[in-house]
Amino acid sequence: MTVIECGENIASAAQASSHSMAEAEYPKIRFGVVGCADIARKLSRAVSLAPNATLHGVGSRSLEKARAFAAANGFPAGAKVHGSYEAVLDDPEIDAVYVPLPTSLHVRWAVLAANKKKHVLLEKPVALNVAQFDEIVAACESNGVQLMDGTMWMHHPRTAKMTHFLSDANRFGQLRSIHTNFTFAVDADFLENDIRVKPDLDGLGSLGDEGWYCLRAILWAANYELPKTVIASRKPEINKAGVILSCGASLYWEDGKVATFHCSFMTNLTMDITAVGTKGTLHVHDFIIPYEEKEASFYAATESSFDDFVTKWRAQPSKHIIKTDIPQEVLMVTEFSRLVADIKFNNSKPEKKWPTISRKTQLVLDAVKASIERGFEPVHI
Amino acid sequence: MTVIECGENIASAAQASSHSMAEAEYPKIRFGVVGCADIARKLSRAVSLAPNATLHGVGSRSLEKARAFAAANGFPAGAKVHGSYEAVLDDPEIDAVYVPLPTSLHVRWAVLAANKKKHVLLEKPVALNVAQFDEIVAACESNGVQLMDGTMWMHHPRTAKMTHFLSDANRFGQLRSIHTNFTFAVDADFLENDIRVKPDLDGLGSLGDEGWYCLRAILWAANYELPKTVIASRKPEINKAGVILSCGASLYWEDGKVATFHCSFMTNLTMDITAVGTKGTLHVHDFIIPYEEKEASFYAATESSFDDFVTKWRAQPSKHIIKTDIPQEVLMVTEFSRLVADIKFNNSKPEKKWPTISRKTQLVLDAVKASIERGFEPVHI
Repeated sequence: MTVIECGENIASAAQASSHSMAEAEYPKIRFGVVGCADIARKLSRAVSLAPNATLHGVGSRSLEKARAFAAANGFPAGAKVHGSYEAVLDDPEIDAVYVPLPTSLHVRWAVLAANKKKHVLLEKPVALNVAQFDEIVAACESNGVQLMDGTMWMHHPRTAKMTHFLSDANRFGQLRSIHTNFTFAVDADFLENDIRVKPDLDGLGSLGDEGWYCLRAILWAANYELPKTVIASRKPEINKAGVILSCGASLYWEDGKVATFHCSFMTNLTMDITAVGTKGTLHVHDFIIPYEEKEASFYAATESSFDDFVTKWRAQPSKHIIKTDIPQEVLMVTEFSRLVADIKFNNSKPEKKWPTISRKTQLVLDAVKASIERGFEPVHI
Repeated sequence: MTVIECGENIASAAQASSHSMAEAEYPKIRFGVVGCADIARKLSRAVSLAPNATLHGVGSRSLEKARAFAAANGFPAGAKVHGSYEAVLDDPEIDAVYVPLPTSLHVRWAVLAANKKKHVLLEKPVALNVAQFDEIVAACESNGVQLMDGTMWMHHPRTAKMTHFLSDANRFGQLRSIHTNFTFAVDADFLENDIRVKPDLDGLGSLGDEGWYCLRAILWAANYELPKTVIASRKPEINKAGVILSCGASLYWEDGKVATFHCSFMTNLTMDITAVGTKGTLHVHDFIIPYEEKEASFYAATESSFDDFVTKWRAQPSKHIIKTDIPQEVLMVTEFSRLVADIKFNNSKPEKKWPTISRKTQLVLDAVKASIERGFEPVHI
């Protein structure tokens, strides 16, 4: 197996130049965190570590909870602590908000944030359905604020390297089939009490929490070309309240590309992309959260073949290792803050790429859900 | 990543004991090769290398071709060379035949071989459909001869190690989802002239040649429990003569297990098993032909989880390396010959395990084909 180290600290080097620009030209973007979800701990740490962002405030329905959260998550001494989400949005010093609230609350709070001229970093799934997301997009567009979803792996330098491989007509050729999965095993308490099994909170369940990543990876590999037809797999697991605990689907494109995915709360932690092209193959087994924080790898194969007696491979896949000093969630916050600063201080327009790919992901996710609801009938997009 | 070397030369050690028994007690099993297909070169080499088997004869429709094949493939000086398949079957000194003929000819020649009291090592797919295979099984049973298909990876010591992992309730738990694929990119000449694109020869195309392995792997992982329902993927590629060039399917079990597979003549060489259980995950990327002839590996993960901030994995998959002095196809020939010797010299009954799993594989393969033919309708098994 050939091992290729793709330059040391790619992110570090790349960021160094953008930091110096951001740091030299613009003040740091001031974040407000709307809600104290568990994932907000990771995001708050990322804001602390981002060179062009700072934690400015946090709001919870309970002032006590907000205080405890700020104290535990490295908020600076002057950070504002609020006993409501509204108070965060009303703080004129806050530039941008991070919204980790349950999916059912996204449309309300993201639209309100946009209307209060706050830029919005929104947890995934972005909404309960694409119609709700379109309300959020419309509010952000009419208020000129940046919208980005919290799909962190998009910002890992490994992803750029993998994109490069998938785009290489000589090494990968054309994508023809792809399989992705994301599963993790939850405990009895989760199955009883987590917001992700509650129809009125994260009502999309495993499809929203895990399938989102699988579908994003498929769209990413397909250069964001939407499939024409989506057919959900039979036998999804659904709890008594009607929330999906495991499911999957097949996706079909006009040109014959085929994708499948599987997601589940009921099996061991697994996250794979297997993308097969006319000339090459991509394998990655930790695409959402890399095994290690500062180093990640993928496997690329090109024009693989057997020896004469078909007893071994002639060209084996090579392992590509990408090092990064800066974790992917910090790169996400940095990129979001860079766009916000560019709007705030440089009169730039919001970057449409991010809401566009969020919308496509939600659109396909909606189709999977519709196919399940219609008894696994094909749903055309 | 933890790397675990599973004992040096497992196969070598295991075989050493069975050889000494076979060699001490019984003469070598004498093989006749029926047809000079390309794959017969590999199998002839395997017979030469097997301690309990010997190349005794080869037959082709052309005597010249048979002569050239014997000369090029290490047949001993006294080996018989025949200008017909019948002559091989009529040679009273031949114990067993290897049948690498096109699938459409299997039923005729395997049945005839069995009726001539020859044990049958039969290439895959074993027949054009399960009804044909049942004729072969009936002929072998009534003549008391061993039947085994040529699925070599079943005999690699890695497979036994992986079976052990999948059967481990503590490390793997219960299988819930599995994806397999087998693809390779053929050239223009293959698409025009190879027997695998000809409806009257290997009429099952990619499904028979590649899908066979995907389905076998799925059944193997499911402990050979048959799925209840099979639904072919849409958009299979089919040539003008009606032969499948790429296809896939979803398989469903009563207990909620789900499997998907994809096979294709049109994309890069790729062969994966991704099996996800309630407690563990198995990954292998070269399950049919290992990257190396004498060393193979797989990845096993158990109770994987994240660190507190969900920025990296707590327990990463471990890589298990299995060394073998004896290639898998030689182990296959050795096991087949051991069974034949036990019948011939020890009055044993044929081992039913092998035709049983061949039949199950063919049964599911037939269901995939039927689903394609019925416009991707569910087919119940």
